[in-house]
Amino acid sequence: MPERQFARRSRLAEVLTDRELDAALVTDLINVRYLSGFTGSNGALLVHADRRASFVSDGRYTDQAAAECLHIDRHTSRELAATLLAHAELTTGARLGVETHAMSVDAYDALTGTVGDSGVELTSLDRAVEGLRVVKDDAELDALRTACEISTAALRDIHNGGLVGRTETEIARDLEWRMYAHGAEAVGFDTIVASGPNSEIPHHSPTGRVVERGDLLKIDFGARYAGYHADCTRTVVIGSAADWQREIYAAVREAQQAGLGALVAGNPIADADRLPRKVLDDAGYLEAFTTGIGHGVGLVIHEDPFIRSAATGTLLARTPITMEPGIYLSGRGGVRIEDTLIVEDGAPTILTDYSKDLLEI
Amino acid sequence: MPERQFARRSRLAEVLTDRELDAALVTDLINVRYLSGFTGSNGALLVHADRRASFVSDGRYTDQAAAECLHIDRHTSRELAATLLAHAELTTGARLGVETHAMSVDAYDALTGTVGDSGVELTSLDRAVEGLRVVKDDAELDALRTACEISTAALRDIHNGGLVGRTETEIARDLEWRMYAHGAEAVGFDTIVASGPNSEIPHHSPTGRVVERGDLLKIDFGARYAGYHADCTRTVVIGSAADWQREIYAAVREAQQAGLGALVAGNPIADADRLPRKVLDDAGYLEAFTTGIGHGVGLVIHEDPFIRSAATGTLLARTPITMEPGIYLSGRGGVRIEDTLIVEDGAPTILTDYSKDLLEI
Repeated sequence: MPERQFARRSRLAEVLTDRELDAALVTDLINVRYLSGFTGSNGALLVHADRRASFVSDGRYTDQAAAECLHIDRHTSRELAATLLAHAELTTGARLGVETHAMSVDAYDALTGTVGDSGVELTSLDRAVEGLRVVKDDAELDALRTACEISTAALRDIHNGGLVGRTETEIARDLEWRMYAHGAEAVGFDTIVASGPNSEIPHHSPTGRVVERGDLLKIDFGARYAGYHADCTRTVVIGSAADWQREIYAAVREAQQAGLGALVAGNPIADADRLPRKVLDDAGYLEAFTTGIGHGVGLVIHEDPFIRSAATGTLLARTPITMEPGIYLSGRGGVRIEDTLIVEDGAPTILTDYSKDLLEI
Repeated sequence: MPERQFARRSRLAEVLTDRELDAALVTDLINVRYLSGFTGSNGALLVHADRRASFVSDGRYTDQAAAECLHIDRHTSRELAATLLAHAELTTGARLGVETHAMSVDAYDALTGTVGDSGVELTSLDRAVEGLRVVKDDAELDALRTACEISTAALRDIHNGGLVGRTETEIARDLEWRMYAHGAEAVGFDTIVASGPNSEIPHHSPTGRVVERGDLLKIDFGARYAGYHADCTRTVVIGSAADWQREIYAAVREAQQAGLGALVAGNPIADADRLPRKVLDDAGYLEAFTTGIGHGVGLVIHEDPFIRSAATGTLLARTPITMEPGIYLSGRGGVRIEDTLIVEDGAPTILTDYSKDLLEI
């Protein structure tokens, strides 16, 4: 689907025109992929304000680039930026945007040397491509939907397959295996399986601890499909829930519902932080919530927009994002409920479609 | 083993003294881990030339840092560099080394603002920590040895378990599963399983292609253990080898042997590129070898030293490195043989101890 990448480059070209830039040198590999289709581990892209584009990678990727980067001038070289600039025909006074948030100081110094006394001015792209990536196109939403379906199908297998007596590590590996079996291209990030007291640790690495009756069991995981990441957390009780477990579960669920309600196109991003925190505060548990409450998700598991009290923007339709409040009680255990969803003009579309009732398994 | 990290910081302190630097701001997470023991996803370290050290991470990692970073002053903040500098007591004229190869232009600009008019001079650390990481200590070599043992045990399972009729993807997932079963903490990198004509692609992603008689089957894979990466490739023939397969296998094996012979402490790194290439050239296949021939391996799968014709240094004992020549014939198939080994004063120690005879399976 080269049309898709062409449309994305056209949107970038509009940004360049708005900012009076002649071209953008794209070096962040995720951004290169987004704009060109290239999935290799070394490559760069130059996009002109007039929509021309040229791509470069090293000799390992010549064939792959030919297959993936259609309708783009392609070059093969280890000197990525220098090769693109040599073909760019930028003249004195031209303004070239570079990815200063992702480019190292040493790479920037080398680029300055390459530009030399050509009269080309380097300036920051100011995360322009990340900005474009916030709102997803149909193909991206399809990939994300599939990643989430794979993930919830795998979780269902695990919940239905018996949990008592298995170690956290066994459950994690089995869950990952089932994601592959359901069609994942990769495990999207390190799987969290946290049982009993370990569930108090927000980002717990699975251990040899054996799951037993009375445990909270928190699983935070997700499949990658066509480059896009699902992100889902569910917490269940093994056997029968104690009162304190019911209480914190209910508070987290109510907070998550408040957060979902705030995730509507046009709303301030900061509201999606404030409203669920208020629920946790009213329940007396705000201090037991120690992580971020949500983030954009796509080609990267944590990407713009980040839901924070200091966020100044508003939500845009077709933005996939997570909502993941939690309560983590030191020495006892914790609960997190997390969905991946799509911001819409009305209520959000939940992609991680899986029960949020307190399951006793 | 905080002594280990203390010894590493002491070596860095010596480098700082040699270079007339007062302190190093370490922001690359792998380098932070190497020097402090911290394994989280956000943190930074300041090491003074007098060996004092201070560490900072955000609130998610307060407990983890307390467990992992012993005998180091610890701080909790989202403003990593600013917090370390506020406690560093650097005075006018102090020289602070920063990781310009890994720090973004924007982060460097922010740091420049933090330093302000304090009179502290920023300068490049020039990959000082990467330089220290080349020669491994006992704990690192033990971890690497275990990673390689896990990997070869898993490959043995796969080769003994039947291959005809399975897809590349099934074999890849099964191999990964077996690495976990043998004790891997993670799969070290994307597993390559390339069968038949796909074996001509040096870095092939597994597909649904079914392995059949007459195929070359190239598997490039490795387990991670305690942070350290194994890297191993073996190529076998399914059924009986054809003459052309025997011929290229023999040439690659001879080239690999020549490369191993060059990997002796004190030898020029470039010899380990030149000698195996000469074997491939003499056999008439040099043009069919299109990748790098070897690289250091440790906390990162590809790290210093890289074996290249332009490399200027000499090999140091206790350096883990790979040797991986190959022949990739367009439209037919390819062979690669790769070991992870340790450079010694005499013959290298091969860690990926697995037959390099042409196996017909």
